[in-house]
Amino acid sequence: MKNFTFVNPTRIEFGKDKENNIGQYMAEFGVKKALIIYGSERIKKDGLFDRVVKSLEENNIAYAQIGGVKSNPVLTKTREIITFARQENVDAVLAVGGGSVLDTAKVVAAGVKYDGDVWDFFSGTPITQALDIFSIITLAATGSEMNTGAVITKEDTEEKFFVMNPALFPKLSVINPELQNSVSKEYLVYSAADILTHSLEAYLTVKDRPELINLLVEANIKTIIRTTNALLANPNDTEARGEFAWAATLALNGTTLIGFEGASYPSHMIGQAMSAVNDIAHGASLSIVVPAWMQWYKEQNPDQFKRFAQEIFAKDTAEEGIAALKDWYNQIGTPTTLSQGNIDDATLEHVLKVLERDTYSWGLNEIYTPAVLREILSYAK
Amino acid sequence: MKNFTFVNPTRIEFGKDKENNIGQYMAEFGVKKALIIYGSERIKKDGLFDRVVKSLEENNIAYAQIGGVKSNPVLTKTREIITFARQENVDAVLAVGGGSVLDTAKVVAAGVKYDGDVWDFFSGTPITQALDIFSIITLAATGSEMNTGAVITKEDTEEKFFVMNPALFPKLSVINPELQNSVSKEYLVYSAADILTHSLEAYLTVKDRPELINLLVEANIKTIIRTTNALLANPNDTEARGEFAWAATLALNGTTLIGFEGASYPSHMIGQAMSAVNDIAHGASLSIVVPAWMQWYKEQNPDQFKRFAQEIFAKDTAEEGIAALKDWYNQIGTPTTLSQGNIDDATLEHVLKVLERDTYSWGLNEIYTPAVLREILSYAK
Repeated sequence: MKNFTFVNPTRIEFGKDKENNIGQYMAEFGVKKALIIYGSERIKKDGLFDRVVKSLEENNIAYAQIGGVKSNPVLTKTREIITFARQENVDAVLAVGGGSVLDTAKVVAAGVKYDGDVWDFFSGTPITQALDIFSIITLAATGSEMNTGAVITKEDTEEKFFVMNPALFPKLSVINPELQNSVSKEYLVYSAADILTHSLEAYLTVKDRPELINLLVEANIKTIIRTTNALLANPNDTEARGEFAWAATLALNGTTLIGFEGASYPSHMIGQAMSAVNDIAHGASLSIVVPAWMQWYKEQNPDQFKRFAQEIFAKDTAEEGIAALKDWYNQIGTPTTLSQGNIDDATLEHVLKVLERDTYSWGLNEIYTPAVLREILSYAK
Repeated sequence: MKNFTFVNPTRIEFGKDKENNIGQYMAEFGVKKALIIYGSERIKKDGLFDRVVKSLEENNIAYAQIGGVKSNPVLTKTREIITFARQENVDAVLAVGGGSVLDTAKVVAAGVKYDGDVWDFFSGTPITQALDIFSIITLAATGSEMNTGAVITKEDTEEKFFVMNPALFPKLSVINPELQNSVSKEYLVYSAADILTHSLEAYLTVKDRPELINLLVEANIKTIIRTTNALLANPNDTEARGEFAWAATLALNGTTLIGFEGASYPSHMIGQAMSAVNDIAHGASLSIVVPAWMQWYKEQNPDQFKRFAQEIFAKDTAEEGIAALKDWYNQIGTPTTLSQGNIDDATLEHVLKVLERDTYSWGLNEIYTPAVLREILSYAK
């Protein structure tokens, strides 16, 4: 195993009804006034918002609230919330929603403590401090509940970029799988594609990986496939919902990303450009990109691609493994072609243009030239 | 998955030469004066102690030092070190050694902050605070480097008991696998038996376990078996040494102990009684006890025992799985019978007497009656 540093201080409160204790948890961290950040008004209709507020009030935590965060969260909204958070003089943020809400809350938490414009963080300025971050996760996918990352889209320049900093570890995240029972079939399968990609990119782009880490990643991938199938058959399968949610967290909490070097994330790079241009759901962009990228890349890491085929789909060859993944995506109903994702030729050209600009930021400009990117996406036609 | 809380704030610095930065790491936590706690004088002969001291000095951290902690660490030594730590007015402990040294350091760290006798912690008094704890681990086995536990033996009453408390999380642990290349073959195989038992007890004593957690535990067990075999063939196989060390940490850092309820640790209970009476190495006691306990218990959880046999040893039945584990222990050279462990009939009676007293402390008195314990150990004859 290569040298590594591992630290992940986020406390997880996992399970039924845990969100009803959020005030108590936040009080343990000394929170006096929180900003509740959320997406759609659904959490007000289904009672979740009221339960959160009740728990805060019972623990003498004041709060302000702001909603309207959307999927593929945007910079203008983030700036708006930072201004509001300063007016309200909060000392913590509480994200109630999915990864987009939490990513917004993370960037807000850092932005409030920073004098300049928050986009600076996405272009090299290091984050040095942030308000305390808490979350109640209603959609398992991004892993943001237990990591240092956040992804935001700058609309005017169509840049969907990420920032990572230890100050962005949530202090505590609540994962109640039952809150996720109402996730639509569509978003369930997009989430599955997102989580698998978190597992697959480092798994497939590194040659010299510890066997132990391979086994852990494969445990996670098998769990996502099994539980997605179970949840499509029965959305109220709480056991499957729980394992799906925890596998989502594990995929990107660092435990499977240690002991090796040189992982790269080309599928995320391409998928994020698609979402920046077309607002396609993040997971949907990845189920289109990943099999196409695998097709292009497979001969660069043949042993690992063969291992993937054997371990995950009981197939013999890399080619068959890729086909099996694509079949599974088709079967669960997440797109695998550009046309299924409503990306026409003009949009594709637009995506390629954005990518031509962005590969440098990802450190992938040398390999992922315009010609290579065009070839990769040709496999998704 | 059942409800759970997960938190593990320990920072791990893993890899070659990391111990040379210990002063820098401790300075990041604001340490002014540390007590270096160690076992034998070997660390002074092989240069490790000097490198640690150099790093502390370079970072303006004062230090005191005390050695002589032995395997199956004892209460009298712990009390002695607490007195010394108070005299020296240290604000942190740095364990340089294996699990026994670290467990001693943990109990010292809590004891310094407590007015009463430190054994109170082992009989119900909760720990509320501790000095900052750091470690450089030279033997992978106990997992103490990334958890809240510590085990100490009270010699006069032959009680080998454990304490767990969040205050006992090390702030930071260094795991440099190369420091473990010099571990004797004997201690390597004892360690393997210890780590496997950490994985196996919860795995085998719980019926309704999440599949994801089963897969993670099996990844760990397979890794320990594979890397032990590799290290017996070549003690300088750094890759195997690294995976062995990390699997040891993962076995008991909480990541595989969540999402289920009702795990019990009867083999540790029995093994610890043996060590308290006979000073047998902890891992050696476990390789004797575990197969015997499995033989006695197997019909209480037949599906999981069958799964163990299939997944770990590619065998069909529980019986064959147990035999395969015992064969493997014999093959690597850790004892599987009482006589191999130099436990004669008189000592056995003594152990049974101690156990008759201690089962209550483990919450296992209802199931593990004297007759049951006698039956279990009869399988180890």
